[in-house]
Amino acid sequence: MALRVCVTGAAGQIAYSLLYSIAKGDVFGADQQLELLLLDIPPMMAVVEGVKMELSDCSLPLLKDVVATADYKEAFLNADVAILVGAMPRRQGMERKDLLKANAKIFEGQGKAINDYAKKTIKVLVVGNPANTNCLITKTCAPSIPAANFSCLTRLDQNRAQYQVANRVGVPCDKVRNVIIWGNHSATQFPDVSQAVVVTNERTPVYAAVKDDAWLKGDFISTIQTRGAAVIAARKLSSAMSAAKAIGDHMRDWWFGTQPDEWVSMGVFSDGSYGIPEGLIYSYPVKISGKEWSIVQGMEISDFAREKMDATAKELMEEKEAALSFLGQ
Amino acid sequence: MALRVCVTGAAGQIAYSLLYSIAKGDVFGADQQLELLLLDIPPMMAVVEGVKMELSDCSLPLLKDVVATADYKEAFLNADVAILVGAMPRRQGMERKDLLKANAKIFEGQGKAINDYAKKTIKVLVVGNPANTNCLITKTCAPSIPAANFSCLTRLDQNRAQYQVANRVGVPCDKVRNVIIWGNHSATQFPDVSQAVVVTNERTPVYAAVKDDAWLKGDFISTIQTRGAAVIAARKLSSAMSAAKAIGDHMRDWWFGTQPDEWVSMGVFSDGSYGIPEGLIYSYPVKISGKEWSIVQGMEISDFAREKMDATAKELMEEKEAALSFLGQ
Repeated sequence: MALRVCVTGAAGQIAYSLLYSIAKGDVFGADQQLELLLLDIPPMMAVVEGVKMELSDCSLPLLKDVVATADYKEAFLNADVAILVGAMPRRQGMERKDLLKANAKIFEGQGKAINDYAKKTIKVLVVGNPANTNCLITKTCAPSIPAANFSCLTRLDQNRAQYQVANRVGVPCDKVRNVIIWGNHSATQFPDVSQAVVVTNERTPVYAAVKDDAWLKGDFISTIQTRGAAVIAARKLSSAMSAAKAIGDHMRDWWFGTQPDEWVSMGVFSDGSYGIPEGLIYSYPVKISGKEWSIVQGMEISDFAREKMDATAKELMEEKEAALSFLGQ
Repeated sequence: MALRVCVTGAAGQIAYSLLYSIAKGDVFGADQQLELLLLDIPPMMAVVEGVKMELSDCSLPLLKDVVATADYKEAFLNADVAILVGAMPRRQGMERKDLLKANAKIFEGQGKAINDYAKKTIKVLVVGNPANTNCLITKTCAPSIPAANFSCLTRLDQNRAQYQVANRVGVPCDKVRNVIIWGNHSATQFPDVSQAVVVTNERTPVYAAVKDDAWLKGDFISTIQTRGAAVIAARKLSSAMSAAKAIGDHMRDWWFGTQPDEWVSMGVFSDGSYGIPEGLIYSYPVKISGKEWSIVQGMEISDFAREKMDATAKELMEEKEAALSFLGQ
């Protein structure tokens, strides 16, 4: 059976990088046939048709069908996976409240369509910003789907943090494991390497490998928090290649599971773990098996970490309150 | 040892799609460490730096180093592979002669730099248009490198043709094999399925599988010849995803070889095979083994094919004459 994968914002730059990776089999496996459902707004349909032509021209054997549509029902019908990339970007002069309101409307509509048309087993990954709160809105508007089936992307932050540490220590990126991104995919996020290790012949804690606590508690954190803006300043366009890579990593791990003794970060529905308020979409370290994630428990939280974890939770509480107030309008 | 791979036009859309594929190991193998040499013109250096940041943020273990430069020596020094994507695009009001002249200058300079600084075993793939003639200029200006080490891209045309046939027959794209692209990567190219087969339980000639000679000799050919323009009309941007895919296919097959009983199309230095003038870069069906291509010999050429093969050769002769006249200016 072909897997039905919906990608929204299909005319955009992230989707352009992502769709090829999915269609060639990098995310759901080299034997998994695929039907891609490309959603965007009506003015973008010609571009989406062009993307569809290019996907054809890639001559990919797993790609059974590609549907380009501006209709929610067609996009989410019997979908196994939804990757919600499209969102209203912040425009010059737009208040934060206006941004939350515009996005609440988009994700309310998509949540309802997922509720009504998608498979009940659908896995939903929200990428469009504010990703955590957009994910919460989507989940709230799709009550027939288990809360565990909704997540938002913080893997890009994790990948960025892995690179920064690997580059500092002088090892390949895959030798740095168990970096944690806590909280909101925003400038308040807390990239935490207190549990992370550098795996060579032995497992060395990152703090011992880097030997520069001031950097790890200072510039390292702010580099990750502001990396998106730094990429925009250089490219004059926001991250697309690296976002698509992270989306692929997130979904592949959700699909196939994590390695023993390793975890990854995902924004998931909080059960109150680590003193974070229940009912937020908060980025936690998770292990995944059988397509089910579970929050890694029992880690010691320092005062330094506590403060940062609470600050990003506070921001999410405020976003939640504002966004929920816009529902049904 | 890390492989040194130079990509030109590194700030552009094709490179943006391509660099990730290379860096993750899809082209030169999952165990091959890489150093990427990103060349573009000085005004694009900030963008290239942004691309470099994103490659880092992809957290890819094979990527040992990335150099962003506008300097030919730095870009080609000890390079094992060069993928020449950057070229002067045709602008409104530009005569074809002006375009050939502008590109002759670019590829003359890069050919000389390859001659002076790259490894003598370097494999060069030219993508920037007019690709065949740009490749010929590069080869001409790098006499210390064997002619067999230069090629230009017609794999995108091959992939497009495979999809068109597969879609028509109703099979996955990889079941259609041995499509040939003859000649110039331009509207005179000849996509030829007279030798191609659909491989299911048996090998059925494409003509027998499609059962529509008029389409195969008519709209099929013009669809492939004008596909690039059709993508631009839809996307408002030229093909990047599918071009990057084809570049990866071309280089991977050059590196690792083709399957028995199968061939692929590459623009290569003509030895006069099939009555094509010697000394053109002409797209032929080739088999590859030990990183060496050889033109598939002994195929019967119909009058229909002969005419089209000669027409595209004639265009290449004219391009060659014009471009060579600009050298040294």
